[in-house]
Parts: sequence; C-alpha cells; structure tokens
Amino acid sequence: MNAWLRQLTWRIPEDLSSPADVARYELNRALPGVSISLNQDDNLGDGYSVQRVSSGWQISGGKNGLLYGAYALILKALSGEAVPDDFASAPYYPLRMINCWDNMDGTIERGYSGRSLFFENGCFDYDPARMRELARLLASCGLNVLCINNVNVHEPAQRLLEDLLPEAAALAAIFRPFGIRLMFSVDFSRPLKHGVPTADPFDPAVRAWWRDTAARVYSAIPDLAGFLVKADSEGRPGPFSYGRNHADGANMLAEAVKPFGGWIVWRCFVYNCRQDWRDTKTDRPKAAWEHYAFLDGQFSDNVILQVKYGPFDFQVREPLSPLLLGMNHTNLAMELQLAQEYTGHQIDLFTMIPMWRELFSDLPANRIMSLAAVSNLGRDDNYTGHPLAAVNLYTYGLLAWDPSVDAEKAVTEWARLTYGFAAADEKKLTGLLLSSRRIYEKYTAPLGLCWMVNPHDHYGPNPSGYEYDLWGTYHKADRNAVGIDRTSAGTGYLDQYPPEFRQKYEDPETCPDLYLLFFHRLPYSFRMKDGRTMIQRIYDDHFEGYAETQSLAETLSALPFPEPDRAVILRRAEMQLHDAKEWCDIVNTFFHRLSGVEDAHGRTIYP
Amino acid sequence: MNAWLRQLTWRIPEDLSSPADVARYELNRALPGVSISLNQDDNLGDGYSVQRVSSGWQISGGKNGLLYGAYALILKALSGEAVPDDFASAPYYPLRMINCWDNMDGTIERGYSGRSLFFENGCFDYDPARMRELARLLASCGLNVLCINNVNVHEPAQRLLEDLLPEAAALAAIFRPFGIRLMFSVDFSRPLKHGVPTADPFDPAVRAWWRDTAARVYSAIPDLAGFLVKADSEGRPGPFSYGRNHADGANMLAEAVKPFGGWIVWRCFVYNCRQDWRDTKTDRPKAAWEHYAFLDGQFSDNVILQVKYGPFDFQVREPLSPLLLGMNHTNLAMELQLAQEYTGHQIDLFTMIPMWRELFSDLPANRIMSLAAVSNLGRDDNYTGHPLAAVNLYTYGLLAWDPSVDAEKAVTEWARLTYGFAAADEKKLTGLLLSSRRIYEKYTAPLGLCWMVNPHDHYGPNPSGYEYDLWGTYHKADRNAVGIDRTSAGTGYLDQYPPEFRQKYEDPETCPDLYLLFFHRLPYSFRMKDGRTMIQRIYDDHFEGYAETQSLAETLSALPFPEPDRAVILRRAEMQLHDAKEWCDIVNTFFHRLSGVEDAHGRTIYP
Repeated sequence: MNAWLRQLTWRIPEDLSSPADVARYELNRALPGVSISLNQDDNLGDGYSVQRVSSGWQISGGKNGLLYGAYALILKALSGEAVPDDFASAPYYPLRMINCWDNMDGTIERGYSGRSLFFENGCFDYDPARMRELARLLASCGLNVLCINNVNVHEPAQRLLEDLLPEAAALAAIFRPFGIRLMFSVDFSRPLKHGVPTADPFDPAVRAWWRDTAARVYSAIPDLAGFLVKADSEGRPGPFSYGRNHADGANMLAEAVKPFGGWIVWRCFVYNCRQDWRDTKTDRPKAAWEHYAFLDGQFSDNVILQVKYGPFDFQVREPLSPLLLGMNHTNLAMELQLAQEYTGHQIDLFTMIPMWRELFSDLPANRIMSLAAVSNLGRDDNYTGHPLAAVNLYTYGLLAWDPSVDAEKAVTEWARLTYGFAAADEKKLTGLLLSSRRIYEKYTAPLGLCWMVNPHDHYGPNPSGYEYDLWGTYHKADRNAVGIDRTSAGTGYLDQYPPEFRQKYEDPETCPDLYLLFFHRLPYSFRMKDGRTMIQRIYDDHFEGYAETQSLAETLSALPFPEPDRAVILRRAEMQLHDAKEWCDIVNTFFHRLSGVEDAHGRTIYP
Repeated sequence: MNAWLRQLTWRIPEDLSSPADVARYELNRALPGVSISLNQDDNLGDGYSVQRVSSGWQISGGKNGLLYGAYALILKALSGEAVPDDFASAPYYPLRMINCWDNMDGTIERGYSGRSLFFENGCFDYDPARMRELARLLASCGLNVLCINNVNVHEPAQRLLEDLLPEAAALAAIFRPFGIRLMFSVDFSRPLKHGVPTADPFDPAVRAWWRDTAARVYSAIPDLAGFLVKADSEGRPGPFSYGRNHADGANMLAEAVKPFGGWIVWRCFVYNCRQDWRDTKTDRPKAAWEHYAFLDGQFSDNVILQVKYGPFDFQVREPLSPLLLGMNHTNLAMELQLAQEYTGHQIDLFTMIPMWRELFSDLPANRIMSLAAVSNLGRDDNYTGHPLAAVNLYTYGLLAWDPSVDAEKAVTEWARLTYGFAAADEKKLTGLLLSSRRIYEKYTAPLGLCWMVNPHDHYGPNPSGYEYDLWGTYHKADRNAVGIDRTSAGTGYLDQYPPEFRQKYEDPETCPDLYLLFFHRLPYSFRMKDGRTMIQRIYDDHFEGYAETQSLAETLSALPFPEPDRAVILRRAEMQLHDAKEWCDIVNTFFHRLSGVEDAHGRTIYP
C-alpha cells in the first residue's frame, strides 16, 4: 500500500460488500482488540460522528458515513495524535469527483504516473486487488465519484455504454463497497453510430436512443453517478452542430438519466481553438462566459456545469472564472486539475492547496454545489508518479469535504501519515510543500502572464511557443510592453465580473502584483508597488525562483525519505533544478532581448 | 505512367534482362516502325552517341549507355523538337545517387508523397510493375544508384543484410536492367547484435564480421553499389563510441566491400545536437569541418564522404559547405535534398535547380566525384506528392549527368515532356517554376538567417521555434540587432573557407545581400547596398513574397493542367497562399515587435 495509507499494510478481501463491511474490516485490522460499534443512521448521509464509549468507540453515520467515520478514526489514531473523545463531520459537497482522463489504449491524456489505471489495448485490464487499494485511498480522503474515462472519448471508450458495459459494471462493483460511484464520459454524437441519422438533441429518435441507453446502463450499474460531457470543445461533437445551445444538449441527456437519479456533468471548456493571432478582438478568457452565462436558469436540475477554476486552462495563476460568480440559477461544479499539466508534470514540486484556498477565498459561499478534479493517478507503484504529488490528491479530498480546510494543517496531516518524520523534518517538508507553488510560479511565466510553455507537451519554457498559434494564448511582448489589456478599455474581459472584482483588478496601480499581466498590458518601466520596475521584478522573481529551487532540492535531499520514494524524489528534484535554470535563463533572456534593460544587480542574463 | 514519361503509356514487361533489352523494347514502342540498331561499346561506359543512319538510327554506348542513349532519343522525339542527326553525351559523375529515407514500417522520414516505395509493416511490400515504372523514370534522367532505406537505420532494416537479403536481391534484379544499382544504409553497431562484444573498427572480430557480411551480401547482389552510413550523428552509433575517428570507421567498412568493387558512402552530418543555447562559442556550421577536415587524405579510395551542400541542413539559402572546398585528397559527394523538408513539404512550390546552379558556380571543377540527393519519391500515384515537384527529380538527374546544365533549359524540357503546353503557357509555367525558390525565400527566414520553422515538423513559420533549443540554430534577435557573427571576429566559421570566399562574405558592406544574416550580426538600421535599411528590406521581401505567391497561384490556376494534377496543384497552391500569408505576417510582426520600426510604406504589420 502506498501514499498516505502505507501503514495499512493489509489487503482488503474481495468479499466485503458494503461500506459497513469495509469499515468493520479496516477497524479490526487497524485497531486490533478495540471494540467499535457501528450505528447506521441514514439521516447522516455521508456524515458521521465518533464517540468514545466505555467499551471502546461508537461510530454513527449514514451508509457511507460509517466508512468515512472509520477512516477518520483510523487516520487520527495512526497519525499519533491524541484522538478526541467525540468528533463529527459531514461533507460540504455531495459530489466529490475525480475525472480520470484514461484512454482505452492504455495511455492517459496529461498523465504523468504511468499507464491507465483501468485499460490497456482497448480492453479493461486491471488487478482487482489494486483497484480495492485505490478505492480505499479515495474513500479515506472522502472522495465519492470516479469518472473512469477521458472526456475526449476516443474509440472504443464509447462502448462502455454498449458491449463493454458488463465489464464496467464489474469495476463499479469493486468500488461500491467504498462508497464510490463510477461515472462515464460520453460521446454526444454516439447515436449516429447506431442508425440514428442525427445527434440533434431535439430529434425524438435521438432522445429515445439516449433514454434507452440510460435505461440499459442503469440496469447494469444502478448507482452510476451519471455522464460527463465535453461537447463542442477542441473538436468534440456537440449541440452546436445542430444549431442547438448547450442547455438544449445537456437537458436532453439529463432527461435520459433523471429516472435513475443520474447527473449530467457538462464541461464548460468551450472556446475558439482556431483563433487567428492577428485578431485582437477575440479574447479566449471571455469565451466560457459568452457561451454559457446567457443560459443561466435554463438547465435541468440534474445538470451540473463543470467550470475550470480560471478562464484559461489550469494555469499557475488565474483569477477565478467569472462563470463561477455569475450563474446563480445553475448547478455549478468547480474543476481543478491534480495532473500537473502546466505545473511541472509531476517532476517539479507543486502543492496545490494554497492555490485552491485562494480561489475559495474569492468564491462566495454556496455558489457551487460540487468539486471535480482531473486525476493525477496512474499505474505507477506510487500512484502519482512523484511520491510527493500524492499530497494533491489527499488535500483535494479534504477540500471537497470541507472547502474551509486549513492548507497548512491538511499538508501536515498528509506528511505525518505518509512519512511520520520527527517534528523538525516534518516542518521542513510541509514548509517546502506549501512554498512549492510560489517557487514554480516565480521561475515560469511572470506576474499572471500564463502560458510560455512548450506547445502540446506543456512542459518547459518556450516564451513564444503559442504566440502565433491558434489557441488564443498570446502575450504580445514587444520592445516596450507586454500583456493583453483585458479591462473595458481593452478586450473587456474584466467586464464579465461583479463590481468588487472589477475594482480589485482594473487599475494597474492597485491590481495585485501577481495578476498584473493577466489583466493589463504594461511597459517594462511600469513601477510596481514596491518601487521596482516591472522588468526588474521579472528578473528578480526568476533569479529567486531558481535560488529557491536550489534550496528546495537541498532540503529534499536532507530529509529521511524511505526508499523507493527517496530515489524518485531526488531524481525528480535534479530534473526540476535543471529545468528551473532553463526557465530562469530563458525568460530573463527573452525579456532582456526585448527590453534592453540590464539587471540592476548585475547578475548574468545570457545574450 | 506519371511525371515526365506520361507519353510512355505502355508497361515494361518483366522478362527484359539487360539495359539493351529495355532500350530495344522502349524504342520499338516509342518510335514504331523506325529501325534502330544498338552497338555496344564498353569503352563508352554510361556514355552514348546517337547517329541518324540511312535505315533509321544507330545508338552506340556502353552497357548502360545504350539505355541512356535510347531514352535521350525517345525524349527528344517525344518533346516535339527536331532531333539532331548526331548527338552524344557522357555523364560527369559516375555515381548519380538517390537516397530514400524509407523505413520498413512503411513511413518515410521527411517524406511528403505518401507511404514507402518498398516497405510496409516491417516487410518488403511493392508492386513489381510499379517498380519497373520507377526504374524507367530514374534511368530516363540518368540516375544509377538507389539507396532504398533510411540513413537512420531503424529495426528491422538491419536485416536487409541478413534474412531479408533474398528479398532485397529480388528488388535489385528489378532495377538491374535499368542500369540502377541498389545501396543499403547500414547500422555501424550491428556486430553487437551478432555475438561480437564490440563494434570497434580496430577489433579483428568486428572486421571479420563485416568482411563476412559483405561477402554474403555481394554473393546475393554482386552489383550492389555499397553501403551508406550515418554514424555518430543525431544519436546514431559510430566509431566515436570506441575512441576511433571517422576514417577508422569508414576504412574498416571499405576494406570489407573492396573485394567486390563496393563503395562506402559516409555521411558528414556530424554536429552537437545537444548544444546549450547559452554557449556562444560552439557554432553548428563549424562542426563538419572540425570533424572531418583533419582527416583529409586518410580515407580509403573506395570511401566517399557525402557532404550536405551547406553547413547547416538543407536550408533555403546556405553558402557552400567549406568541407566541399577543403578536402582535396578525399572522394567527396555533394548531398542535395529533393524532399522539401525545409522548403515547403511539397505543398509550397520550390524548384531547386536555380539553387543547385548557384552552388556549382561556387564549386571548383573536379572537387567532388559524385552527387547524391535525398529522395522526394513515395507511393503517391504521381510519385512526388505535388505533380510539379517532379521537376526536382528530373532536373537533379540532368545535373548529376552534367552539372553545367542550363537551369531554364532543363526546366523547360521537363515542362514540355510533362504537359506539352502551347508556347505561351509553357513559358508561364517554366517562369514560375524558376522563380519559385526566390519567392519562397522571400516570405520565410530573411537574408540567409535560416531556420525560423516549426520545430520537428519543419513546416510553417516559428521565428523563435529553435531559439532556446538544443540544435545549435539560433538567430539571437534582440531589440537592436539580429544574426550570428561568423567572421573571425565572431565564431570564426568563415575562417574555414579559402581566401576568395572569406573575401566575398567577410565585410557586411560587400557581402551579397542574401547571405548577410548568415554571416553577420547586424543592427536593423544597417544600410543595404540599395540604401534601404535592413529592417525595411525584411518587410519589403515579405510583402513581395506574399504578393508574388498570389500571382503564382493565379498563374497556376490559369494553366491548362490535366486532371488529376490540376486538382492537386490548385489545392496546394491554396495552402501555399495561406501559409505564405502566415509567414509574411508573422516574420514582419516578429521583427516589428523587436525593432519598433514602422514600414516605410504604411502596409499592415499586425501588433
């Protein structure tokens, strides 16, 4: 067993059929000789309460709540803390979702932890014991929905709803005792492959096809969470092909799954990915709002719009998507990404919870009803490629349970469970994890500018990699200035926000430094609040980012990680150090060539 | 039958076993009723003479010369010219080579004409009738050596020397009656796969393995031209692994094939492809000279060093490689590239013979003993993807036969044979073919700067695509200046040249405009000989290049090409026009952002 459950050395038998069974089994093994009674109270749902009683412990909870309570008790006991006599908890979000981007050929889109968890060569291919370990890992941090296939539904994943359904049902049965419901990404155009001449959501034959399909799927997997849909995005089919809007498309599918209590999770990642770089009117961050905001209130009550946290695409720093602030009559989920697509490919250290907490500090209460995260899991022994990347999975679970979770506390908890270091080392480890995002940000694209990565791959520096491409991600750096003016004087993107956000960002003099180049086009000579010029701030951040990476690598190498983690961690730290140097030097050279401004401290910027 | 032999509508029977047989068959079909006698005179070798005699024609020639004479007579007759009563010719170079970069998986490296000619799925896979058509095409323009597999020898192409040898021999037998000898690219490290513990060229077991291998191969294919080797280049194995130099490696192989009259053709494409962009001392164009010049005189007499025409890699404009000027005691072949890797992927029109003629005008007589060209052939019906790209194959044959061939005459001949247009249209077509290289050059990287293409793919504009990469191909454009100083004040590359070349290029005031940014780093304000600033010249060239592409596309669409050529030509012209616009705008914007200089004529440069 890996990650934060490495103290749970026993395997889970295959014959446990309910969360209570699993709870009982795990408690017996983790706390041998301790008497624990389980008291199912369906009113508690996923919540639980745990009391010390004379004979030992009593756990009350709904069907799944019993298991969450059991893991809470076990983890508290294993972490070596004093266990309180009485504690209780209930999740903030009912759906706490992981989206796997696993393809049936065995690859994972944007996966950095090995091959697919579930598939190989177009077939299901997994070790059931390993699946139970994975289920335990997810349940232990409170996650309860697992979408098993890529939102880009490549053949033959469409067949999950068809001849592969019995095998999918067998997988669902493995996860069920852990309180985890599967979900499938579906292909909006699929009726066309089954003799229906259209996929138009208004066509009765299409509606009938989806109703029949849903009935068939739910008869095999009655607790399926629902369907996840990426439509009219980056080449995927969708309702636009038939002159319908996304509410038309989503509601048609929602009608099909509604009788079975299913959800339609509809991704809002729609933009023009064939943009002309010469077109300065179109501004990609504006796209989601333009496609969805006017539909507020028109979605069925079992549709959830799944919105990426920022308006671009999982960048290191983006403002909260305006869509998450402006659709008050629509079910919303915020989408995070554990897979480090733009944040270092699980080579560079990047602990996300400080970023997530910032997002939540901007998000008014009750604005979203669910959280989703793109998986960072794969077939690697350690699940997440980099052993320290597991912190993102664990803390994501905690965040989805309670978005007000304290970042430092969550990371410390993970570190303690995973490595059980002495206090000083634990503090060093949590300190560097908590600082890792800001370090990465310092040596990559400056001050909210985003992108500057190698195209396609999205790893490593390439300041102009996307500059003349079709993706709508431009910085337009020239010899005088850099950035896109997104205020009302510019592309008008900022106008999509409520007044308090507009006020926060609109004036470069008061806009927070780290968002400056997200919202503004500024001359290199622009004075930051601390008096430095913007170009000097760029140089300083990059030199600091690299220096901090050096000290991060030293700290890592001094910590007593066990093998095999240690070897992986040190090798990746070495790669990060090399790549941070590339980033630092390339970004500094790029801006130096443009601006001609020398570093005020005479450090080396290469010609 | 395609390309310039489309008037030869008959198939060649499979039972013709000698060049004389083929000559006789083709003459009977092409000139029915005309009495032609063949007079073999082995002193004439590949040369021939053709005389009108009372009964008809007499062709004298060596074994292959008879066939070349026959095709010469046929093509003259078919082209509608008056055939002279007496004409004769002999080739300037004994080896007139085509290098196919075909992989056994069916792909062609840098191929833009469909799948491999010879291979699919790891096996030989071809239609013998089609092979005879190809052989006829090559023989009709005088080519006589065909290397059938990629210089990057990927598994299982090594087995051409092993269990696949009987099939290779069968292919050789198809080409033999056309005077064409096969050649194989070989893997220097191959002994390691056969129980020899090293591939060190000084090791007796290695020498013995290659001797045995050569004996086996030549017993199956006695007229094999030899082996082509890419060693110690871009990851290929070679003598460096054993502390030996390239003469050691080449001579060892030469010893093995010498008893059979075989050649070792040793490519000189060696450079550091893991360069650090921060390193300003290393300069990739210097590499070939540094690796080979000191070995002059040390190669066996059946070794040929095959040197790319320029010091980089098949760019639109490069000065002649200094290696072709400085190795007076070594057999040299100049390597050209018909495949349009950097010259438009057989989408953009790029007729190469004007460029080749420029190279030859710089090359002293008798400096090279052979010509080689990377193939532009593939399984497409028209052989070359773009029907007009066949002009490069045909004129390459003429050039290898006689490097003083007149470019306009050669292109006109090709156009007449291929399309037989009326005079005015023929003139339009040859005019645009002859101007196509300069047009392409105008809208791509300016003034000899090279590169600026998309990495890996090598199609389309990406001004900084290679700027921070490992390939040693930098322009270091900043707000003031662009280019690399390659004079003795800079990297010293120019010092590798003889005095007359140094004199031609070393002073930016006198250096030919189109080589300025190959040799010099210059400010945008540099005054060209015509008084324009360099930046204005860049803008002008790019606007002109696009405008000329528009007129090229119009001309093409007005010409009476037959189908299916017309559809392909017009579709590709449309793509070229789109891409020329991208190139023009992106390069102009790139330099405008850096320099801040406006176009003197107020044309649109996008921000």
